[in-house]
Amino acid sequence: MIIDIHGHYTTEPKALHDFRAAQLAGLEDRARAPSSTDLGISDDELVASVQPQLRFQRERGSDLTIFSPRASGMGHHVGNEAIGREWCRVSNDLIGRICTLLPDNFAAVGQLPQFTGAPIENCIPELERIVRELGFVGVNLNPDPSGGYWKAPPLTDRYWYPIYEKLVELEVPAMIHVTASCNPAVHFTGAHYINGDTTAFMQLLQGDLFRDFPELKFVIPHGGGAVPFHWGRYRGIAQDMKKPLLAEHLLKNVFFDTCVYHLPGIELMAKVVPVDNILFASEMLGAVKGIDPETGHYFDDTKRYVDQLQHLGEAERHKIFEGNARRVYPRLDALLKKRGRVRTEVA
Amino acid sequence: MIIDIHGHYTTEPKALHDFRAAQLAGLEDRARAPSSTDLGISDDELVASVQPQLRFQRERGSDLTIFSPRASGMGHHVGNEAIGREWCRVSNDLIGRICTLLPDNFAAVGQLPQFTGAPIENCIPELERIVRELGFVGVNLNPDPSGGYWKAPPLTDRYWYPIYEKLVELEVPAMIHVTASCNPAVHFTGAHYINGDTTAFMQLLQGDLFRDFPELKFVIPHGGGAVPFHWGRYRGIAQDMKKPLLAEHLLKNVFFDTCVYHLPGIELMAKVVPVDNILFASEMLGAVKGIDPETGHYFDDTKRYVDQLQHLGEAERHKIFEGNARRVYPRLDALLKKRGRVRTEVA
Repeated sequence: MIIDIHGHYTTEPKALHDFRAAQLAGLEDRARAPSSTDLGISDDELVASVQPQLRFQRERGSDLTIFSPRASGMGHHVGNEAIGREWCRVSNDLIGRICTLLPDNFAAVGQLPQFTGAPIENCIPELERIVRELGFVGVNLNPDPSGGYWKAPPLTDRYWYPIYEKLVELEVPAMIHVTASCNPAVHFTGAHYINGDTTAFMQLLQGDLFRDFPELKFVIPHGGGAVPFHWGRYRGIAQDMKKPLLAEHLLKNVFFDTCVYHLPGIELMAKVVPVDNILFASEMLGAVKGIDPETGHYFDDTKRYVDQLQHLGEAERHKIFEGNARRVYPRLDALLKKRGRVRTEVA
Repeated sequence: MIIDIHGHYTTEPKALHDFRAAQLAGLEDRARAPSSTDLGISDDELVASVQPQLRFQRERGSDLTIFSPRASGMGHHVGNEAIGREWCRVSNDLIGRICTLLPDNFAAVGQLPQFTGAPIENCIPELERIVRELGFVGVNLNPDPSGGYWKAPPLTDRYWYPIYEKLVELEVPAMIHVTASCNPAVHFTGAHYINGDTTAFMQLLQGDLFRDFPELKFVIPHGGGAVPFHWGRYRGIAQDMKKPLLAEHLLKNVFFDTCVYHLPGIELMAKVVPVDNILFASEMLGAVKGIDPETGHYFDDTKRYVDQLQHLGEAERHKIFEGNARRVYPRLDALLKKRGRVRTEVA
């Protein structure tokens, strides 16, 4: 089976956007605040809204997408903490409903009500709710809730430890994913997302976080930002800092997805990053919407690139498409097993 | 001949560091401010200080390094504008002296006295001084003088236009290079430098700067940050934004260096970036100091990687090693011609 570990709900019904607009308008004029968190979106509307994703699954040949709210929509820098918490619940609830309605196509990953300056502990109730009550298999963790100004302490700081303890306890990985940028110098999908990945990796390289949390698992999206391209630089900096080899220091805990939108990029990644650390993903209906004039295929049809990696054996390709995802997301594996989808092993 | 377009003076005599320390101490206690900008460094000391660079030139087989002050030392976010201007002059003067003492080995690139919130016009006198009086062939331009908080407007903003007009008038390119990070979340060589490159490229992609400045030339160092690895993403975002193809939109004006510290990275770069846009560089005595245990060679011995690019013909390799540098840095070309080093053409 083919698991796409990185999809966002970017085809939300208008009612969700209207709710958010009312929420923010309500900060200025209470009369405009939404009167209820019931958006009045029916199950049929939800199913209709994800038809583009389902069509791409069929056309491109993937089976299941790990599905989370629109990343740029998380907006941790917007409004205040209370508004953010409400927005987070509403956004996660929609994801939960979609994954319940279409359990063969989607597994749920949530967002957290992070807010600059607020203790990370404040996110634990929502994390427990989505995992224990709604059956989510992972969560997105934003290393920069200030939206492009990098005001949070690095991921290795003890500020973050309470959420890591909970992640380990619940056996869910975190995808390190920023939200929109409110910094006019930093474009969201073209700079902030990629910089977020690179910065997070470097924070982890500098620290020794996984000595304290050997079971913690992070997925760094967008192919790890700049990291595989500069793999020699990172190996060299780690060596200059007297850190262990990256395999030992980070790669038991840090994984990369394949959201890199051209074959040469994926080829490089598969050359330098161990196959056990690569998880198939497309970020579909995400950052790039068009068709590559050089290939005639969608830029974000990343399965084609993985299929073209000549040097991979079937067992390795299976790891990228399924095995690694079931290992990194044990709650997904459990869900699938319960439905009779035993984890296949390719020799 | 082999031109390395990206080297920093990271082996400065102690007197320079002492001067800077006194300058900054003087902000707190005027009695500690340096009494003179004459550092008392002799020519012999200067020549002795760059022996490590000269040894690497000999051992690795490069001829001339385009040499600029230590990038992390520029420190545009430190102190105040007046202190920064003095520091900038002192730093540039040392580079100028080294390049006069060893004209066959070094050509000079300067730093600018940028300061957050100060008009960029304030940098023009120093730019004119180093180019017209000291014979510098280029300059480093910092897109984030706030040192990791990205408080400056994007490079496409009219804020920057006065310096662009002067760069065009003087026929000198700018290397887009950040300085140290004062943001604890963002490591300098492992995150801020690479993010700076990626962010600058994306700013240029979003705008139409080169319509206003068709002669302006930017070098983006460190292989362009994450850009070649995500070449498909950038081509796709440009297309979604209805921009022309990158070749038309940016590549007449934007160039990348080869400071990527492993062969697979350089291979990727040479696969996606046109050969006319790649300039050989090592950033030597820079970010990574060690020997790669996988190859037994220094990580930053980037000439080895370029030499190993199988698919390049001699004419293409010559462009990367010499031709492109002489085209992008016309004042370097003029200097070399004056010394009888005619630009060789490889058919």
